[in-house]
Amino acid sequence: MSGDCDFGLIGLAVMGENLALNVESRGYKVAVYNRTTDKVDALIEGRAAGKNFVGCHSIEEFVKSCARPRKLMMLVKAGPAVDAIIEQLTPFLEPGDIIIDGGNTHYADTERRTKEVEAKGFHFIGTGVSGGEEGALKGPSLMPGGSKDAWPMVKEMFQAISAKVGPNNDIPCCDWVGPRGAGHYVKMVHNGIEYGDMQLICEAYQLLKDVGGLTNDELYDVFDEWNKGELQSYLIEITRDIFSVKDGDTNDHLVDRILDVAGAKGTGKWMSQLALDLGVPSTLVTSAVFARGISAQKEARVRASSILPGPAEGDNPKLAAAVAELAGDRATFIEMVRQGLYASKIVSYAQGFVQLQAASQEHDWDLDYGQCALLWRGGCIIRAQFLDRIKEAFDDQPNLENLMLYPYFKDAMATAQPHFRAVVMAATQLGVPVPAFSTALAYYDSYRRDRLPANLLQAQRDYFGAHTYKRTDKDGVYHTEWLDLRKQPTS
Amino acid sequence: MSGDCDFGLIGLAVMGENLALNVESRGYKVAVYNRTTDKVDALIEGRAAGKNFVGCHSIEEFVKSCARPRKLMMLVKAGPAVDAIIEQLTPFLEPGDIIIDGGNTHYADTERRTKEVEAKGFHFIGTGVSGGEEGALKGPSLMPGGSKDAWPMVKEMFQAISAKVGPNNDIPCCDWVGPRGAGHYVKMVHNGIEYGDMQLICEAYQLLKDVGGLTNDELYDVFDEWNKGELQSYLIEITRDIFSVKDGDTNDHLVDRILDVAGAKGTGKWMSQLALDLGVPSTLVTSAVFARGISAQKEARVRASSILPGPAEGDNPKLAAAVAELAGDRATFIEMVRQGLYASKIVSYAQGFVQLQAASQEHDWDLDYGQCALLWRGGCIIRAQFLDRIKEAFDDQPNLENLMLYPYFKDAMATAQPHFRAVVMAATQLGVPVPAFSTALAYYDSYRRDRLPANLLQAQRDYFGAHTYKRTDKDGVYHTEWLDLRKQPTS
Repeated sequence: MSGDCDFGLIGLAVMGENLALNVESRGYKVAVYNRTTDKVDALIEGRAAGKNFVGCHSIEEFVKSCARPRKLMMLVKAGPAVDAIIEQLTPFLEPGDIIIDGGNTHYADTERRTKEVEAKGFHFIGTGVSGGEEGALKGPSLMPGGSKDAWPMVKEMFQAISAKVGPNNDIPCCDWVGPRGAGHYVKMVHNGIEYGDMQLICEAYQLLKDVGGLTNDELYDVFDEWNKGELQSYLIEITRDIFSVKDGDTNDHLVDRILDVAGAKGTGKWMSQLALDLGVPSTLVTSAVFARGISAQKEARVRASSILPGPAEGDNPKLAAAVAELAGDRATFIEMVRQGLYASKIVSYAQGFVQLQAASQEHDWDLDYGQCALLWRGGCIIRAQFLDRIKEAFDDQPNLENLMLYPYFKDAMATAQPHFRAVVMAATQLGVPVPAFSTALAYYDSYRRDRLPANLLQAQRDYFGAHTYKRTDKDGVYHTEWLDLRKQPTS
Repeated sequence: MSGDCDFGLIGLAVMGENLALNVESRGYKVAVYNRTTDKVDALIEGRAAGKNFVGCHSIEEFVKSCARPRKLMMLVKAGPAVDAIIEQLTPFLEPGDIIIDGGNTHYADTERRTKEVEAKGFHFIGTGVSGGEEGALKGPSLMPGGSKDAWPMVKEMFQAISAKVGPNNDIPCCDWVGPRGAGHYVKMVHNGIEYGDMQLICEAYQLLKDVGGLTNDELYDVFDEWNKGELQSYLIEITRDIFSVKDGDTNDHLVDRILDVAGAKGTGKWMSQLALDLGVPSTLVTSAVFARGISAQKEARVRASSILPGPAEGDNPKLAAAVAELAGDRATFIEMVRQGLYASKIVSYAQGFVQLQAASQEHDWDLDYGQCALLWRGGCIIRAQFLDRIKEAFDDQPNLENLMLYPYFKDAMATAQPHFRAVVMAATQLGVPVPAFSTALAYYDSYRRDRLPANLLQAQRDYFGAHTYKRTDKDGVYHTEWLDLRKQPTS
């Protein structure tokens, strides 16, 4: 038995409700179910009243309300709940039905679930959904991966509900990403880049506020200006907005009343941990994750702030004078910070794509990097003009090994470089922490270096652990008895 | 049936052979076994000839050669091999026998195995063994954890074979660490700190060589000098030695012929990944792991080196002039590098102990931090005078929340600070990558700051995802409809 709903949605928290309303608004009939069935009734009687919805009070009713092949999507907490729902659904499914997980699921779970669900004769899609509550309602970025055979059956609907970009606003920010966990991996990298962007903006904010002395009103103007140029993006735009919001009680700027302890949901951490597994240096997202960790040590920081000294008057006087001169000219300093932010952002995206390339190779996903950039062009949190340039770069050179090498970005880095170095030096001299700016610069300087000091490190490893080494001048693997060959110490 | 061997060792690679010889040399009778039994014969007929050994050709013979309660240690590749050997041993064991894993095992495996082996009525010890081949033979640092009841039965032997320190050379670098995986966790943090020390030394080397223009002979003298002061340690000593070793073929310094691609065995990576799980910012080891990753991208770096420009003549002229003056005075520059290395090392150890504290709390291990420092005082790769100061700090303040806050280290950081900042600024201006130096400084500056910019980050998260925030001026959790309250943009 099957009903006539085009789509089913399980999990009626805000994201789920909004996504269901989005689907219905495009002309589809939607079945909804929630474990706590009060939420079903509340939706049907509330925001969905008079709309093309079927509220269901059991999994069986829910499945049977949908037309075959069924498109059954869940938006629930990632983890065991997803496995539990798959188990509850399967007794009622028929061959060819499609289970869709739209949560922030770890890609490895989606790899496993795709295989398990396919083995039972059904399809599985794990899709990234980005854009927050508003995006879910009006048009998110969607990053679907999993059972490729299912894609033609959901493509029209997915692309209808997704964000659109392009001069005619008709290019959907949704396309097939790849097999198994590919969609969730791309979403994770999106989120990791989001962590990096947010940390970089915070460092820029701290520099402008604490070194530049800008007020919130002036910060509004700076971010408004930045949002008209190379940095144009959703996160710059909402940062601008934030500086305009007053606290109802005190009429102070609300941002000044917010506790400086950052929360986190874990996707940034996953990206860092997986970069470590792949051996690729995604240093920027990692610095952002760790910066959130340090922010969380608020009480320890307050204690330490009265114990650990900062830079002292008179230290390194010539460096200090040069920094004071640069930081003293407001327009110069703001431009230094902007260029530092832009260059760091290029590094961050370059690292993200390097990680995608390594993961694609490891898992045989055959990702299309230009398309990933396009999926992020609209709807999602990191949406930015900048992603058009990245798409162009990968369209032009599909095997581009690092974004920084593409002429457009190489030139941008070259232009930014003196400012980038100056702002990191100023922060260093003045004791303002810029972990993400400085890790970005260290990556740039490491990556462009044909000779790093790892020769010494290999010598050390061979000395104490006989780990062997390679040579620059001939092939083969070597071990040296360093202890026998060293100069005998005199003392 | 049981024999009269005091100790049994499985796994006769170099580390295993050396450890067995060490045990025998202290007056114990040792049974040995290896899956490839040729190795048993080779040892018995070779290095063990005439010594108190029993070579065994089967697991059964091996177990039965040992006196009860048996002390059966394996030194094999971490992973499934350890489980396989436990399974092979158990049919022949009797109540109270002790299985010991001396490999570089992930602590979570040791947590699990301790419970599994104890459930069968036997004891399990997972012990860190550090000191490389030479340490295994002459006296390693040992970090045992697991079944506490087994400790009195192995204590005398373990402490007999371990390295000794102290004025009378009688304090063993071996004591009970804690339950289950505690010993292997402490060993992992030792290795992570080792990664950090090595990376910091490499950065110092690159600065001295590329900026200071020091020859290998001069580097020998600098490290020899450094090894007489605050930096005195095994790694500084072997680095000094390395600069004296010539290549037999070319008579050049061998270090210059070694390929700058660093290998890794994974414990540093584990420490970074577990720091991310715990939410503690172990940024230094992570920068070291990532630096090895960048070093491995040798071909990409060589290509990039001809594409990506470094700092240009005439950029930031006053900063450049101030840097040139500092770097131009050789004695000043060497001291800047030394102080930067020392300050970064303090940060690295501070982070390592913060991670140990977080892990101890998470796993209920009740670690003694001063004792950890003592275990690392001799025998192991990171052995250093410096660890006496750390032991003193934790003996004095067992709940010290961060080493940097202890007067001795606080003062050392204060003294180093101007040099530390100057050397990071010099590297930044000159385009020399110092990822570990700069992440150490960013940590210092973040940790001593009562107010970080995470208030803006929380505002962003609440704006796009309704993640809520806390306030500085009142309790509770808040959400704001930023979109409604923002200043309406004019364009």
